[in-house]
Amino acid sequence: MDLLKEKISTQGNVLSNNILKVDSFLNHQIDVSLMQIIGKEFKSRFKNVPVDKVLTVESSGIAPAIFTAMEFGVNVVFARKQQSLTLNENILTADVISYTKNERTTINISKDYINSGDSILIIDDFLATGEVSKGLIEIIKNSGAFITGIGIVIEKSFQKGRIYLDNAGFHVESLVRIKSMDNGKVTYL
Amino acid sequence: MDLLKEKISTQGNVLSNNILKVDSFLNHQIDVSLMQIIGKEFKSRFKNVPVDKVLTVESSGIAPAIFTAMEFGVNVVFARKQQSLTLNENILTADVISYTKNERTTINISKDYINSGDSILIIDDFLATGEVSKGLIEIIKNSGAFITGIGIVIEKSFQKGRIYLDNAGFHVESLVRIKSMDNGKVTYL
Repeated sequence: MDLLKEKISTQGNVLSNNILKVDSFLNHQIDVSLMQIIGKEFKSRFKNVPVDKVLTVESSGIAPAIFTAMEFGVNVVFARKQQSLTLNENILTADVISYTKNERTTINISKDYINSGDSILIIDDFLATGEVSKGLIEIIKNSGAFITGIGIVIEKSFQKGRIYLDNAGFHVESLVRIKSMDNGKVTYL
Repeated sequence: MDLLKEKISTQGNVLSNNILKVDSFLNHQIDVSLMQIIGKEFKSRFKNVPVDKVLTVESSGIAPAIFTAMEFGVNVVFARKQQSLTLNENILTADVISYTKNERTTINISKDYINSGDSILIIDDFLATGEVSKGLIEIIKNSGAFITGIGIVIEKSFQKGRIYLDNAGFHVESLVRIKSMDNGKVTYL
């Protein structure tokens, strides 16, 4: 997706060999026009896939998930990273290690919003080690729903997440696939 | 806003005299069609107000903020509640106490995305004690930008937030104003 590559080139910030900062359009400021285009792109890539709900994780996954869900005419569910007083005990959980925050968190989804038999499209901002995806997959498996696709805005293909998801047989679509970020320079697959 | 009142009546869950759970359309599952209508409603209520950016706080504010920003043709900035490895030191912070999570957190906004002189519309899911709004106001004040409006999806008018914001002279628009939730029943102003 050339527009996204251009955004990464002009506004992205390579902080180390494996951390890319894209706060200007995705992780802190949200470029709403770009997100609309991203939603249409995911719709096109998953056009033959049944989707009852789009699932993501707070917070940076919410914007691309919303615009994808809008294209499919379905709702979004976002997994929460902490349990709040307004989440009851009717929840499915999985432990994940956040790559950028370097801490273990529990992600939660209420059983009320993922039904057995639902076709679920997972949308997330980044794919790196695949920890978050594994957590979501575990939760969906326990809910009796099905994952019909996994859409990623930015994939760091040199980390192990993509290989894991491919080997597990999922239909993965990443809008950009980064081969390396060595010496501060982003190169694509 | 009658549609929102109907959603609260049919899907909301009064957990106590002051906690309303609306996980089915706003705080966990996102009703995308409703959010589109909410965006148009905020646009209509703030139609004479200059808006360069919509500001919210992760995570539940993001959906209504995005659809409001889309109507105005501007971007969203969401304040983060934790500092991640990809946020650098160029940040403005404020301490707030989360009402539903009952804990003190620091909210952060990068100076890169709020410019001196910007007209900022704050959008949030709930207004209760006004703690989060006060934090955002403090940050905007320190950035040299201006708050031109504060839009709230659900206001609990029996708590002190609205009175504080009115007294401080802000233009506040709440889509529904809840007078009380005594005995599990929501009544409106």
